[in-house]
Amino acid sequence: MTLNLPDVQDVAEARRVLGPVAIRTPVLTSEALDRATGGRIFLKCETLQHTGAFKFRGAYNCLSRLDSATYPDGVVAYSTGNHGLAVSRVGQMLDIAVRIVMPRDAPAVKIARARAFGAEVILYDRHSQTREAIAARISARARVAVVPPGDNPHIIAGQATVVTEALEDIGAKRVEAVWVPCGGGGLAAGSCLAVQAAGSSAAVWGVEPEGFDDTRRSLASGRRETNLALNGSICDALLAPTPAELPFAINGPHLAGAVSVSDAQVLAAIRFAFEELRLVVEPGGAVALARALARPEDFRDRTSLIVLSGGNIDKALFEAAMRTDPDGEGAISQPIFL
Amino acid sequence: MTLNLPDVQDVAEARRVLGPVAIRTPVLTSEALDRATGGRIFLKCETLQHTGAFKFRGAYNCLSRLDSATYPDGVVAYSTGNHGLAVSRVGQMLDIAVRIVMPRDAPAVKIARARAFGAEVILYDRHSQTREAIAARISARARVAVVPPGDNPHIIAGQATVVTEALEDIGAKRVEAVWVPCGGGGLAAGSCLAVQAAGSSAAVWGVEPEGFDDTRRSLASGRRETNLALNGSICDALLAPTPAELPFAINGPHLAGAVSVSDAQVLAAIRFAFEELRLVVEPGGAVALARALARPEDFRDRTSLIVLSGGNIDKALFEAAMRTDPDGEGAISQPIFL
Repeated sequence: MTLNLPDVQDVAEARRVLGPVAIRTPVLTSEALDRATGGRIFLKCETLQHTGAFKFRGAYNCLSRLDSATYPDGVVAYSTGNHGLAVSRVGQMLDIAVRIVMPRDAPAVKIARARAFGAEVILYDRHSQTREAIAARISARARVAVVPPGDNPHIIAGQATVVTEALEDIGAKRVEAVWVPCGGGGLAAGSCLAVQAAGSSAAVWGVEPEGFDDTRRSLASGRRETNLALNGSICDALLAPTPAELPFAINGPHLAGAVSVSDAQVLAAIRFAFEELRLVVEPGGAVALARALARPEDFRDRTSLIVLSGGNIDKALFEAAMRTDPDGEGAISQPIFL
Repeated sequence: MTLNLPDVQDVAEARRVLGPVAIRTPVLTSEALDRATGGRIFLKCETLQHTGAFKFRGAYNCLSRLDSATYPDGVVAYSTGNHGLAVSRVGQMLDIAVRIVMPRDAPAVKIARARAFGAEVILYDRHSQTREAIAARISARARVAVVPPGDNPHIIAGQATVVTEALEDIGAKRVEAVWVPCGGGGLAAGSCLAVQAAGSSAAVWGVEPEGFDDTRRSLASGRRETNLALNGSICDALLAPTPAELPFAINGPHLAGAVSVSDAQVLAAIRFAFEELRLVVEPGGAVALARALARPEDFRDRTSLIVLSGGNIDKALFEAAMRTDPDGEGAISQPIFL
C-alpha cells in the first residue's frame, strides 16, 4: 500500500491556509534557560495558540478541506485532549458538527472545553475499549469523516507550520537542533518536513515520557512498537499507544532520535516555565524543555529550537509542579498547607 | 521650578536605545476575553520582558546614560520590587554597582532575584521609614546616582516604548483606549507620550488597586494626593504612596482618568490569565485585565489595548488565585491563609 505522505508543497499550502486564522505564536528566549544549559535556546510558544496547543493548526488545515457533501454529519475525532479541543473549536468556526471520543481520565478542563465549543464528547475507558473502534462505529452509523490526531497528510502539514514559522523568525541556518514533544509523532513528522522545506540541516529530536518510548523503540526496531502501559504518566497529551502510521513513515528516516524524560523532570520544567518564563505549560507540552533542563550537555554551545506545544493543565497538577523542589532534581518537596 | 519632562523625541530616542536589548514582547488576543467583554482587546505582554516586567525598559534607558565619572559608586534605587529587579539586571549588564532599597514585606521572589543579579539589597520598614530618606542617606555617603521608579525623564520615555511597540503592531489608528496599571504613574505617563507620538487619539486610563487610588484623587483635586494606607492590597507593585511628580505633570493633563479594582477582581484576572491565556501575571500587572473582566461595558464594541505589566508572583499567592471562584464574581471560594 502506498501511503499518502505530505511533502514540502503541502506545508507551503498549509501556511497559506493558516495564515489568516492561526496565531503566529511568539518565539521567546530566556537568559535563565541559556544560563542553565550553556546554549542558545529559542522557545516556540504554542501554549499561546488558539485552544492552547499547536493542534489547532492541523485541525484547521484538515477541516477546512472537508467535503461536506460526502460528510454531511460532520466529523469525529479521537483524542487524548488537545486534538479534540482543536477539532471542536475549528468545527465551531467552520460550522461543522463535531463528535469527540476522549478517554474518561482526560483532564477535566479539556473535556469541559470541548463541550463548551459545542462538540458532543463521547468518553471511553482506555483499558477496555480502543478509541479507533469507537470512532469507526460512529462513522459507520453517521456520514462523518474521521479526523485522526496524526494519520492524515493535512494534519501533519498543519503541524509543520509551527517549526516553519519559528525557523523563519530565527533564521533557518542558525538552528542546529529542533526538540519537540512526541506522542503519536505528528508534530515530530511535521517538524522534519518543515526543516526540509526551510533548507535547514537541523537535527529533529522527539521527546517522550519515560515508559512511553514507543517512538524510540520503533526507530530502533524499524517497525511501530506499542507502549506496555496505557497510562501512568502525567503527560496526558503524549500517551498514544503507538506511533501513528503516516508520521512514523516520515520520522523513521528523518528523525535524529527520540529520548525520554521522567515525570519529576517534567514537573521541574513546568515550575521553571512558571518562575522564569511566566508561561503556563502542560506536562506533555513541557517535555522538550524538561530535557534541556535535565540534560543541558545536549544543548551546550549550540542553537536549539524547543517547542512548548500546549498549556492546558488542571490546576491541581500545576500546584503540584509549583511545589517541586528545583534543587532536588525535580522531586516534590514537603507538602504545603496554606 | 521647571520640570524636566520627556517629550516625543525622548520616546523615539528610547526606542533606538532599547531596540537591541529589550524583548519586543508579543501582543496577543484572546477569543475568550473578547467574548467576555464584547470588545476587541489586544494584550501587550510585558510579563515576557527581561526580569518579568516593563520596568526593564526605563531602567536600561536611564542607566545606559549614567555618567560614571560623576557616579563611580554606581546607582541606588528604591522600589516595591520590579523596578529594583530591573535596575539590578541592567546594572549587571552594564557593569554598574547597584544598591536596592526595598520594603521588608516585598515578595520574597523579588528580593531573592535582585540579590541573584548581584545587587546589594537594603530592606526597610514601610511603617517607620521612608525609602526616599534611606536612598538619600546612601547617596550622601557614596557617589551614587539615585534611580527613582518614575521621577526621571529617561525612565518615563523608556516605559513609553511599551505602548509605542503595541500601537505599531496593532495600528495606531485602530486603538480607541489604552488601559495600564498605575502606581507611581510612570507607565501611565509614558503611555500618554506614546499615544501622542503615534498620532493616536486613544484615551489612556490608569487602573489602581482599591484603596490606593491616589492618582484618581489627584486628578480630581489637581494636586498630588497621598494614599491613606501604605499596604493592605495584594498589588504590591502599585503601592507607591503618592503619584510621582514628573509622571503626574504628564498624567494630569493627558490621562482620561483613573479607576480601581478590588483584590478579588485581581485574583479572578490572574486565574483568567492562567486558564485562558496560559500566562502568569502578578497582581499589580493584572489590574487592567481585571477591570476589563469586572466592567466589560467599558470595553464593549471598541478596540482596546491592555498592558499586562509584570509576572513576578509568589507561588502561594498564585495558588490562591487559582482557587478563586470565577462564578462568584471573583470571590475566593475557600478561606486562604497566606
